[in-house]
Amino acid sequence: MRRTLYTADHEAFRDLARQFIEKEVVPHYPDWERAGRMPREIFERMGELGMLGTAIPEEYGGGGVRDYRFNAVLQEEAYRALVTLSTVRTQIDVILPYFLEYANEEQRQRWFPGLANGTLLTAVAMTEPGTGSDLAGVCTTAVRDGEDYIINGAKTFITGGLLADLVIVVARTDTDPDNRRAGLSLIVVESGRPGFTKGRVLDKLGCKVQDTVELAFDNVRVPQSNRLGEEGEAFGYLGHNLAQERITVAVGSVAQARSAIIATSEYVKERKAFGQPVASYQNTKFELAAMSAEVEAAQTMIDRAVLDLVEGELSGPDAARTKLFCTEVQARVVDRCLQLFGGYGYMLEYPIARLYADARVARIYAGTSEVMKTIVAKDLGLR
Amino acid sequence: MRRTLYTADHEAFRDLARQFIEKEVVPHYPDWERAGRMPREIFERMGELGMLGTAIPEEYGGGGVRDYRFNAVLQEEAYRALVTLSTVRTQIDVILPYFLEYANEEQRQRWFPGLANGTLLTAVAMTEPGTGSDLAGVCTTAVRDGEDYIINGAKTFITGGLLADLVIVVARTDTDPDNRRAGLSLIVVESGRPGFTKGRVLDKLGCKVQDTVELAFDNVRVPQSNRLGEEGEAFGYLGHNLAQERITVAVGSVAQARSAIIATSEYVKERKAFGQPVASYQNTKFELAAMSAEVEAAQTMIDRAVLDLVEGELSGPDAARTKLFCTEVQARVVDRCLQLFGGYGYMLEYPIARLYADARVARIYAGTSEVMKTIVAKDLGLR
Amino acid sequence: MRRTLYTADHEAFRDLARQFIEKEVVPHYPDWERAGRMPREIFERMGELGMLGTAIPEEYGGGGVRDYRFNAVLQEEAYRALVTLSTVRTQIDVILPYFLEYANEEQRQRWFPGLANGTLLTAVAMTEPGTGSDLAGVCTTAVRDGEDYIINGAKTFITGGLLADLVIVVARTDTDPDNRRAGLSLIVVESGRPGFTKGRVLDKLGCKVQDTVELAFDNVRVPQSNRLGEEGEAFGYLGHNLAQERITVAVGSVAQARSAIIATSEYVKERKAFGQPVASYQNTKFELAAMSAEVEAAQTMIDRAVLDLVEGELSGPDAARTKLFCTEVQARVVDRCLQLFGGYGYMLEYPIARLYADARVARIYAGTSEVMKTIVAKDLGLR
Amino acid sequence: MRRTLYTADHEAFRDLARQFIEKEVVPHYPDWERAGRMPREIFERMGELGMLGTAIPEEYGGGGVRDYRFNAVLQEEAYRALVTLSTVRTQIDVILPYFLEYANEEQRQRWFPGLANGTLLTAVAMTEPGTGSDLAGVCTTAVRDGEDYIINGAKTFITGGLLADLVIVVARTDTDPDNRRAGLSLIVVESGRPGFTKGRVLDKLGCKVQDTVELAFDNVRVPQSNRLGEEGEAFGYLGHNLAQERITVAVGSVAQARSAIIATSEYVKERKAFGQPVASYQNTKFELAAMSAEVEAAQTMIDRAVLDLVEGELSGPDAARTKLFCTEVQARVVDRCLQLFGGYGYMLEYPIARLYADARVARIYAGTSEVMKTIVAKDLGLR
Repeated sequence: MRRTLYTADHEAFRDLARQFIEKEVVPHYPDWERAGRMPREIFERMGELGMLGTAIPEEYGGGGVRDYRFNAVLQEEAYRALVTLSTVRTQIDVILPYFLEYANEEQRQRWFPGLANGTLLTAVAMTEPGTGSDLAGVCTTAVRDGEDYIINGAKTFITGGLLADLVIVVARTDTDPDNRRAGLSLIVVESGRPGFTKGRVLDKLGCKVQDTVELAFDNVRVPQSNRLGEEGEAFGYLGHNLAQERITVAVGSVAQARSAIIATSEYVKERKAFGQPVASYQNTKFELAAMSAEVEAAQTMIDRAVLDLVEGELSGPDAARTKLFCTEVQARVVDRCLQLFGGYGYMLEYPIARLYADARVARIYAGTSEVMKTIVAKDLGLR
Repeated sequence: MRRTLYTADHEAFRDLARQFIEKEVVPHYPDWERAGRMPREIFERMGELGMLGTAIPEEYGGGGVRDYRFNAVLQEEAYRALVTLSTVRTQIDVILPYFLEYANEEQRQRWFPGLANGTLLTAVAMTEPGTGSDLAGVCTTAVRDGEDYIINGAKTFITGGLLADLVIVVARTDTDPDNRRAGLSLIVVESGRPGFTKGRVLDKLGCKVQDTVELAFDNVRVPQSNRLGEEGEAFGYLGHNLAQERITVAVGSVAQARSAIIATSEYVKERKAFGQPVASYQNTKFELAAMSAEVEAAQTMIDRAVLDLVEGELSGPDAARTKLFCTEVQARVVDRCLQLFGGYGYMLEYPIARLYADARVARIYAGTSEVMKTIVAKDLGLR
Repeated sequence: MRRTLYTADHEAFRDLARQFIEKEVVPHYPDWERAGRMPREIFERMGELGMLGTAIPEEYGGGGVRDYRFNAVLQEEAYRALVTLSTVRTQIDVILPYFLEYANEEQRQRWFPGLANGTLLTAVAMTEPGTGSDLAGVCTTAVRDGEDYIINGAKTFITGGLLADLVIVVARTDTDPDNRRAGLSLIVVESGRPGFTKGRVLDKLGCKVQDTVELAFDNVRVPQSNRLGEEGEAFGYLGHNLAQERITVAVGSVAQARSAIIATSEYVKERKAFGQPVASYQNTKFELAAMSAEVEAAQTMIDRAVLDLVEGELSGPDAARTKLFCTEVQARVVDRCLQLFGGYGYMLEYPIARLYADARVARIYAGTSEVMKTIVAKDLGLR
Repeated sequence: MRRTLYTADHEAFRDLARQFIEKEVVPHYPDWERAGRMPREIFERMGELGMLGTAIPEEYGGGGVRDYRFNAVLQEEAYRALVTLSTVRTQIDVILPYFLEYANEEQRQRWFPGLANGTLLTAVAMTEPGTGSDLAGVCTTAVRDGEDYIINGAKTFITGGLLADLVIVVARTDTDPDNRRAGLSLIVVESGRPGFTKGRVLDKLGCKVQDTVELAFDNVRVPQSNRLGEEGEAFGYLGHNLAQERITVAVGSVAQARSAIIATSEYVKERKAFGQPVASYQNTKFELAAMSAEVEAAQTMIDRAVLDLVEGELSGPDAARTKLFCTEVQARVVDRCLQLFGGYGYMLEYPIARLYADARVARIYAGTSEVMKTIVAKDLGLR
């Protein structure tokens, strides 16, 4: 169906993104997969092209247009080419908003130019071993000591942590046991601070280009001027950005599902089984048709959600509905597509195998499907 | 999520529809169910209120605004009140377009006023026993005899056939066996013509308010001036209106699914099981949340499709995708909702039981899900 | 796959059942559907043939062999012929065990001959409006008054209540609020007792041959000699029979699913669509093949469960697993089969429509799927 | 439910297997995963313990009891310990039967001792690039040349090919184009023959312990005495063993699903989310309960199938039904289990992630689900 989400500006950006991905990502992607991460240079190159800082004010070297649709275009184009931008996506979709919203003038001057030109890589450290995504359970502490904080604790599942120059750490600055949600603050810790170590790189089912690490903080001293926003307000800050974070996952899910259908349609037209093209079997046709209908529904939903997000009208429950639905469509689609590849679908040299492995996390991160349902149920008044 | 489909005019029409349905439909609905059909009077009343002829030119007594969104509003409001407008829906969504598109001036003068004021009831007779919805298999013949046609054949599954004053009969006017799709014409047969008999009223699983009958034509003589459009062009005519017909089903499916969720949410809040409200169980919450996400997706899809339809931009394959997806969502939703009613869900006095029984036909009529998939697969280039 | 459940005795009984059903049930079934119940005469006829009392000791006119497999054969044969034995099934599978287990010698002499020869029809009254299947919530009271009980209360969803001569009423004989599960007793109330009235016959989605009614007890006086078993022990009695009750539902579900596949396979071989047999489409083949695999799994499971039941080795959780799985298979199968009938599947003259409507209750009665899951989860040690 | 498949002999073998796996497989398993294959030594060790040759006649060093249940026990015990025996399984379940059935006396003396003591490792080379599992499309040729065959062609997806000492090659010995299924023969090619090269080790989504390779045959000279069975009869031979091959997959699927449930039940009891054990949420309970019911159904089905197989009563279509159903249950179960692990489920250090990745191939190899459906549909008489 018609998509009316994008303007000419977005389409121009799409052309730029498409060329960049084809020339500078696709040829190197297998190497990145083997390395288990993207190289720093790709950030710098994207910085040069103005693709990292579209939302950063012009005075700090950015594009000065805060419009999430540019981010969406970037994801669409990556998945179109059957690659991911991985930690780049995390940086601009998930982490950058914290800087944009909560950095003070001094911090802006200190960090924004590097964020825009790709020389400062970032991560956000929220999850801890044992508590998962329940912020009320955060145990990492940041205790005031003169002008500094002393940080102690451990974090896990940190996307992009290995290369990050700046890590936004969610830490407990007030340990009142009666209010577990208050007392959280966001503190930026630079790589290299004494006591800050990057631990194991976790071996994941998929998302091989994205490094996911454990971080440890052992009496790490950080100046209070590294705190983003007000002390004790992190719970609200984190909640505020969740809608965009979830929409980001959903945008990716729909784009990947769409790519899976295209790749599979091409495959079945060429591949023969029992003497005729796989595409000619009614089962193949019906499977792909059913998927196509689902993906079209998901596309209309995510396009609506993105527009609502951009216009400041997207509610948390609707972001949850969108993530829940779109990630489930993706899961169903990649599974059915892989099946149509037969034995080849199980071989990692075929992108469908990678899409399948990557997809499994979408129903988990940025809030599991169960968390999404909890949010929607509240919205329905069910108690 | 925000819906941007409707304008103030549609919302004004919605108010009118809502009041009409609450006052003049809901109280009598159980009687209509027992009778197995809507009364003629309701057509006349809707004619008076200007609800039947919004799309008919003003000079023939209509509203003069051909905008499918008024039809959509009418369905939404009926399902909101947990009733259906049944054969009214068929008349204005499915049959009226044939008159609007293909009636010549004489026919307009003859029929439009009655269509607008609700004194002329209609049906379309396409399906035949043994051939189903395959137009190539139509056996009913209309043979020229002087100024007339002589019609012979049998039709089945004719919605609204019992009360219809005018039946648009799909008949074969040319019997060239080499081109089974050509040679079909649309001929309007008035009730009462000698040889035209209305047979059995079929007993259906649901849709109890809608009469579905068999029709028989035994040497029925009809003047050629009753032919709608050109001779031999019916195949194209019928195809042309299919998108709207399918969108109509999908609009109804989404509206019914939405109503099912609302009715169920209310029920589970009041009903207790094992000492606590059914709504308080996590299973209840998760079921309704999952459904709510699906229905929201379906809503964005159908809204997009309706707008594309209104603007003349809806392709056949996208209409097929929309019908396929929305009717499947409806099926899943009414089944899961009914389950949450426990034993009461199986009792017809609870609307959910009726919604369940009604829903089953949506994946069948106006083209089965299998036909939808065939259309979409062609669009994907799978052969 | 091979079935090893039955012996030659069961197969001989199967022949008898098959002939009886073909000659004495099938021809009259449409009448019974219209009437909304089975006639008393069919009970008497089955009594004559020795089909009701196989499990009743010979001295009271029964067959003297308590072996549930005879019951299973009876259900299989009914569904094979696309009919149900409805309240007969309830009587011998669900209600008779209470008499067999708990009747004292005087009661045996009083009731067993009539149960065996089909002159005494029965029902069990457990569910109440507002409490559903939660026995802890039973409000109907039986207060001692001399040699009698005085019963007050209301019951609903009573299968076979309309014709029942004897109703086993679950009533509260001790109203200690601290132990809601204790204090329940089984009291047999004869039809015709002053104050005992049979209320509305409930209009159900399906199961049209089975009458389901509301019962009211207004100071109904019943001698204590009508109590089945010990006072205050009903909770345990009812729980004891639940496994068989659930297995009965599952036996029916598998038999109906199997019949649906057979009926559909026959239909698609004969029916043509778009010029070729529906059976020749790959979608048809794959749908039926997938169902066939599921039904075969369900068959092996229910056969195992029946054998375990007969040998006294079936646990409550395994009965729950079996009911949960087999009823879900039935649901999926009848839905997919109906779809293959196209428009005809929605017409009640086709048995598939009836099978579809009947099937919906299987996931609800004798404990909903949710109750089954609760039981299984406890068995898995999840708390 | 009760399982009656195994006798005391099988249970004694189970004890042996369990100890062996715990002591000699589990500790080394991570190393094998990294290496991408099992070591030769494990075959020799299993040979010593008599676990490889139970079915080989005693005079050649085997156990002399051809009973597939020993194979089933071995798989169950491996999956119980959350490991696989991988290529051992292929050797004894899939390949050994060809030797047992078709080896002549000279071949028995040559090969059976090594097969029994684990010094001869094997593979079967059926699939070719471009034709998949369609035997009619086999292009590899074996042309007679004096006492030898000259083999040319390429094979792919060869499980265990890297270590195999003997490869049973399916080759075309007669190239009559009118009968593509005839003219196939089984020829044993020893590793090391000139012109026989082992190509790429394929990188798979899962099954990391199992090497899967490409093989190439370039004028490989092999004596005709290496042919297994009659020339031109391979199509029948391969078909004959398919039932056991499929049952092997199904046995594994059920065992893995069962293990997944156990591992997940343990995890959710220990793990807390939002302040309470994950096990305490109703969603967790219902998910695991639903899975438990499905796995119990699959268990009864596979147990029935194994017994039928052992007794020579298992039909091809029933083997297909069993594989189809059991692999789908596995797929559903591992997906739902993984979800209950949250983010940890995506980390390969948790066995559930491995079970998930491994499971995806089960619906593909030994005949895809689509091939299974085709077989079942034929059995239902659908054409």
